[in-house]
Amino acid sequence: MPMSIDRLKSELIQFGQYAHQRSWVPATSGNFSQRVEPAEILVTASGVHKGYLTADDFLRVTLDGEPLEPRRPSAETELHLQLYRHYPAVKCVLHVHTMAATILSDFTEAEIRFSQLELLKAFDGIDTHEVSRSLPVIPNSQNMQTLAAAIEPYFGEPILPAYLIRGHGVYVWGSDYPSAFRHLEALDFLLSCTLARPYTLRA
Amino acid sequence: MPMSIDRLKSELIQFGQYAHQRSWVPATSGNFSQRVEPAEILVTASGVHKGYLTADDFLRVTLDGEPLEPRRPSAETELHLQLYRHYPAVKCVLHVHTMAATILSDFTEAEIRFSQLELLKAFDGIDTHEVSRSLPVIPNSQNMQTLAAAIEPYFGEPILPAYLIRGHGVYVWGSDYPSAFRHLEALDFLLSCTLARPYTLRA
Amino acid sequence: MPMSIDRLKSELIQFGQYAHQRSWVPATSGNFSQRVEPAEILVTASGVHKGYLTADDFLRVTLDGEPLEPRRPSAETELHLQLYRHYPAVKCVLHVHTMAATILSDFTEAEIRFSQLELLKAFDGIDTHEVSRSLPVIPNSQNMQTLAAAIEPYFGEPILPAYLIRGHGVYVWGSDYPSAFRHLEALDFLLSCTLARPYTLRA
Amino acid sequence: MPMSIDRLKSELIQFGQYAHQRSWVPATSGNFSQRVEPAEILVTASGVHKGYLTADDFLRVTLDGEPLEPRRPSAETELHLQLYRHYPAVKCVLHVHTMAATILSDFTEAEIRFSQLELLKAFDGIDTHEVSRSLPVIPNSQNMQTLAAAIEPYFGEPILPAYLIRGHGVYVWGSDYPSAFRHLEALDFLLSCTLARPYTLRA
Repeated sequence: MPMSIDRLKSELIQFGQYAHQRSWVPATSGNFSQRVEPAEILVTASGVHKGYLTADDFLRVTLDGEPLEPRRPSAETELHLQLYRHYPAVKCVLHVHTMAATILSDFTEAEIRFSQLELLKAFDGIDTHEVSRSLPVIPNSQNMQTLAAAIEPYFGEPILPAYLIRGHGVYVWGSDYPSAFRHLEALDFLLSCTLARPYTLRA
Repeated sequence: MPMSIDRLKSELIQFGQYAHQRSWVPATSGNFSQRVEPAEILVTASGVHKGYLTADDFLRVTLDGEPLEPRRPSAETELHLQLYRHYPAVKCVLHVHTMAATILSDFTEAEIRFSQLELLKAFDGIDTHEVSRSLPVIPNSQNMQTLAAAIEPYFGEPILPAYLIRGHGVYVWGSDYPSAFRHLEALDFLLSCTLARPYTLRA
Repeated sequence: MPMSIDRLKSELIQFGQYAHQRSWVPATSGNFSQRVEPAEILVTASGVHKGYLTADDFLRVTLDGEPLEPRRPSAETELHLQLYRHYPAVKCVLHVHTMAATILSDFTEAEIRFSQLELLKAFDGIDTHEVSRSLPVIPNSQNMQTLAAAIEPYFGEPILPAYLIRGHGVYVWGSDYPSAFRHLEALDFLLSCTLARPYTLRA
Repeated sequence: MPMSIDRLKSELIQFGQYAHQRSWVPATSGNFSQRVEPAEILVTASGVHKGYLTADDFLRVTLDGEPLEPRRPSAETELHLQLYRHYPAVKCVLHVHTMAATILSDFTEAEIRFSQLELLKAFDGIDTHEVSRSLPVIPNSQNMQTLAAAIEPYFGEPILPAYLIRGHGVYVWGSDYPSAFRHLEALDFLLSCTLARPYTLRA
């Protein structure tokens, strides 16, 4: 039984408040979405502060990118749609600007590798800390097609359900909102630990 | 249609609570203002804790610095007025003491440059991360004329809508309160990322 | 007079909210328990987010590990039971994932030593800062018997009422919930201070 | 007109909640007091968590250290009394365990000097950043007479209204609660900035 649109909005409104309290959506940054129908998503409107969302700050968009309501969708909606088209099981996509993601993306090459951390088990399909998983890091661009083309090759690899855009922020997804939120909490923990490691161990 | 004075006060009272929760206004520091009429502003009174403002903690002042109510305005009101006189479109000025601003101002020369960060798009008039913008840093003084004279030359340059006073804090402005708040959130994010960058990359 | 099960649950529900606010239980991590009867404990169910616990998210388990209710107990319940079996006076066990515990466990050998800090007096039985106490650090494993065997030898030594599992988190215990909470607050303070010490003093 | 005891308690209860939210009173640490009469103070009872104080968690004590109520006063009450006896104008003393105070006290000699920071103006009697003021750091001891004797010599010097005990925490005072709170907020800001300064500038 699918959840009502009101309930899907409510999850994202509360997530926005939490994200604002963590300083993950500064200055109207970030955008969130949920799949409503197989070929239709609900996404935050452009330009609103994600810490103070109301039910009016969302609109429905088809998988092809056609808005079904008058408001303008977030400029990065195309990156959400790419994930929904590629992964039929994905039902929720969250994009935020955490400090750790922004800083670490700026001085790593094409990926960050994690291993030996218990929190890796928070990601769907991982049941031991004895794995090694990659988080892709792609160059930033104002062209959504360029960003989409940069991330596309990673979809065939066993990456974490997330990627970073350099100097920009993190995208994370899941099979529903709780799953996407769990992945984001885990990822922020892993990235924050990486950033806070003492300097001598970092290199 | 201009906003009522009550509404303008309410925005600043709520901002003060948020700023206190972020530890941006320690020990009665900081001061906030909004333009009420083309030649009249509303500014916080001297000496009150900005995390616990009430409607009585404000007074109106003319652009020439004449108080229109009995309370004493913040000692730094002249710096607010300078911005309102120079930029007719500016409607709100926020001054706070963030840790990142205080620390970074203390070991940089005349400016801090930012580039390649998506959050730069949070500033009015910037639509790509591929820009480079300067944040002026001026020496501290207890003489408001000295401070005003130090910042004046930067007004002709394409600076961010903000400046730092060394060891003192940050001034930020915008076309209304949401705009000034967005600029401050973005600036704190950029400065905090700069401060938290690993040591090897900082120099 | 023993506390009612409702009261024991209520303490852990409120602790979970506090722990979530401190980011100690990211992504459904962590698990909590209290002793109900000499040979019976109450423990959090598997897979739930510890920041949003309800009275339905607990079940009773015997000291031998037999669930007395249909829900599945946390996968790490065996580590809780080991503590309750070894220490008859222990009434509460808390397991969380603090950043400081996770990071420091990753680059220390078999233990972390603390001395000369006033907060050591927060641990039962210590009444001066002029002591030196050890916090064991054991290797991580997905096999609970392996983890239990690794910590067992430390029980005969004058350790703090806590241990770390490498890259995983912290276990802490006490004679009731307030005692276990006090131990956890003190331990997080000691570990966070250790992590934040300037680099030159750390080695 | 002196404030009622209820009002004095209420100020300290709310301060405790704030201090707990900032993690300044971990694990029942810290103790607070206010002067009720010239020769009588109100102080927190021993052993209670300062984040959850109630009106029952205080007792009155004479300037000579005689409890006027059955509860046991905080073990460090003598340090509060020393300040009230030495400075007749002091009406409130706050002792907390901030991370910055604990860490910095551990690797500095007899004092920490501050200068050129605007927040110095938050201390009574300072009206410019162009001053240099000392914060004494004394060795820790479980003997209150030893601690009192170590701090006594500093009272004749132009110190900030505060001192650190090594590995232990900070004492701060003022002419009323708002004044002591303002001094503590300013001191924590100054110490936190010192701790967070980039390594190359710290030495």
